[in-house]
Amino acid sequence: MKNLERDFLQGLETVLGKPNPFIPLHEPEFTGNEWERVKDCLDSTFVSSVGKYVDRFEVLLAEYTGAKYAIAVVNGTAALHIALLLAGVGPGDEVLIPALSFVATANAVAHCGAIPHFIDSEIETLGVDAEALRTYLKNCAIVDANGLINRFTKRRIAALVPMHSYGHPVNMTSLLDVAKDYNLPIVEDAAESLGSTYCGQHTGTFGQLGIVSFNGNKVITTGGGGVILTNDEEVAQQAKHLTTTAKLPHRWEFFHDRVAWNYRLPNLNAALGCAQIEQLPDFLRRKRLLAEQYQKVFQDIDGINLVSEPKYCKSNYWLNTLRLEKPSFEMRDRLLTIANDSGYQCRPTWNLLHKLPMYADCPRAPLPVAEQLEASLINIPSSAKFARG
Amino acid sequence: MKNLERDFLQGLETVLGKPNPFIPLHEPEFTGNEWERVKDCLDSTFVSSVGKYVDRFEVLLAEYTGAKYAIAVVNGTAALHIALLLAGVGPGDEVLIPALSFVATANAVAHCGAIPHFIDSEIETLGVDAEALRTYLKNCAIVDANGLINRFTKRRIAALVPMHSYGHPVNMTSLLDVAKDYNLPIVEDAAESLGSTYCGQHTGTFGQLGIVSFNGNKVITTGGGGVILTNDEEVAQQAKHLTTTAKLPHRWEFFHDRVAWNYRLPNLNAALGCAQIEQLPDFLRRKRLLAEQYQKVFQDIDGINLVSEPKYCKSNYWLNTLRLEKPSFEMRDRLLTIANDSGYQCRPTWNLLHKLPMYADCPRAPLPVAEQLEASLINIPSSAKFARG
Repeated sequence: MKNLERDFLQGLETVLGKPNPFIPLHEPEFTGNEWERVKDCLDSTFVSSVGKYVDRFEVLLAEYTGAKYAIAVVNGTAALHIALLLAGVGPGDEVLIPALSFVATANAVAHCGAIPHFIDSEIETLGVDAEALRTYLKNCAIVDANGLINRFTKRRIAALVPMHSYGHPVNMTSLLDVAKDYNLPIVEDAAESLGSTYCGQHTGTFGQLGIVSFNGNKVITTGGGGVILTNDEEVAQQAKHLTTTAKLPHRWEFFHDRVAWNYRLPNLNAALGCAQIEQLPDFLRRKRLLAEQYQKVFQDIDGINLVSEPKYCKSNYWLNTLRLEKPSFEMRDRLLTIANDSGYQCRPTWNLLHKLPMYADCPRAPLPVAEQLEASLINIPSSAKFARG
Repeated sequence: MKNLERDFLQGLETVLGKPNPFIPLHEPEFTGNEWERVKDCLDSTFVSSVGKYVDRFEVLLAEYTGAKYAIAVVNGTAALHIALLLAGVGPGDEVLIPALSFVATANAVAHCGAIPHFIDSEIETLGVDAEALRTYLKNCAIVDANGLINRFTKRRIAALVPMHSYGHPVNMTSLLDVAKDYNLPIVEDAAESLGSTYCGQHTGTFGQLGIVSFNGNKVITTGGGGVILTNDEEVAQQAKHLTTTAKLPHRWEFFHDRVAWNYRLPNLNAALGCAQIEQLPDFLRRKRLLAEQYQKVFQDIDGINLVSEPKYCKSNYWLNTLRLEKPSFEMRDRLLTIANDSGYQCRPTWNLLHKLPMYADCPRAPLPVAEQLEASLINIPSSAKFARG
């Protein structure tokens, strides 16, 4: 046991050097045209809801991800909220989401007036286990004229939300099969996986809709921001409409035709985003190098290993993640303590969502793998600047 | 009739000069320390949810408004949504709001799962008419053990939201009396009235909670942003908690104890706000001068006059507002057409909220004054830079 603690700390030091005094989990880099773009935005005075940077950021995001349409919004939670609404989620519906996810995934469901229904993850991808889901749905759900119905709660199961944890893509082939068989719309929570692909296709573009986050800790940042991705023109128009107060175009009249939201991304934040996305290929290159360095160091350490990109995938390695070979909250917390005490910011994975008080009564599948992952995952510092070469 | 059109256009030209080619309704000014603060924020890399500018902006806002607590959030709609929740508004409740307001006031009510209940405005202040409200409640509502109940819908009336239109304060003395008599919490929609006072006290600080917007068209802007104001420490803590995913402080654990929102103001936007609020006194001085210039020109024109600040009030004159002496949609739209055709961006007031399809079935008081105001108000260009002197 003592060995693992020592080796873990030594591994961090080998890759990152000594903290002086503190190495955060993930730091953004503004070493490109950030100031130029932001200054140009300020000088234009168009810092708010309208402006060329919002339009340009949307074009760049669509180009980069291969989605036909990209609608910039104020953050990832807002993006997922509206994406779920547009997938048809309504009050009283259930939405299948992994128990192993950030709380925003469940909150976005709750913001629709819907109920999260927790499902299990795979050991390898950390994401939704399609085969376990298929088995579970066979017992738990029936298809009737209203769609897929939870036979115990009698509520409609309206959508399935895979989440690409820490940038590692979910097994989309199997999941699309299940979704097709049960006629379930998929909304991809790709908050963490900008730059990650599955079979060469960008995450967030497999489902009816997908979302990405540009929060300060993500691969690129706009301060706060997010985007809704879709290939459906009508859905894209609705996404723009619902996130911008549903105002009908008119020279001066204030006519709004639906209850809607102010989820616009300000042009100022989009200006930052335009500069950041220019740098994304270089960020990804360096993050991959950093992951290789970690891989090299931790493969020789007994009891712990680095989570690698799944087969057929390219991960963005947003947050490098170590896995204890023997899941143990005690050991996990001991490693977290020594790392953080030594100036390396490290975190466990999220508390499983069904263990949070507001979601404790939500329906759930058996969650053996999520439970195991919760006791074994540790995120380690992942800023691109620590890559060598 | 022809005279009024000619005089109106002439009045605009006298104050604003000739458009070259276009004078917007309200343009922000970044002539202070905006570059410096925003660049410093980028250089710090703390552009997102944590950072000194968010804290500083909150302190400056509390100092400026005299509220004990100020919680910066992502925009005014988000601020009002959370303020209503904290005032006790829940699903199925009704909330009294003016029919004459921007759609965000009603949307924030709907986002709580509550129902807007529309009330009338005063001619002079453009805001909620306290005496008309008192008379209306006598007939429409009863007080029982559950609070104030709409006797027709049987729903609880949970709060009252006055809105300070275009920066002109509502008659708060009378309104506080009514609220007290009916034990109704007040949430002030001061989205438009930063810098406006009633009897020397800042708007947004009379109710249990108040909110201000920093959208791009407001007196000061953060791109997009808003603030929740309150004098209650417990409410302030809850406001911060609910707008930041309700995460409990812990060195690494992700424990969230309520369904909550990601309504944080990014530090980047707060940096802009800090620079803008330094300039606020000068903006207000010049906006007042501009209003005086308009006043001087339009007082000599028959058929139209400028809305002036109410008694005991200091208005920020956010948007200068002309009033047709004889309400007429036809004349209003004719004036809007010639002004906009000539390059002066002018707008009518908002379509009354009960005329929008999603709010058409909501309960409402008689709205004779709001109807009259809808047909007679015109906003004219109001950027501080047009002030002379």
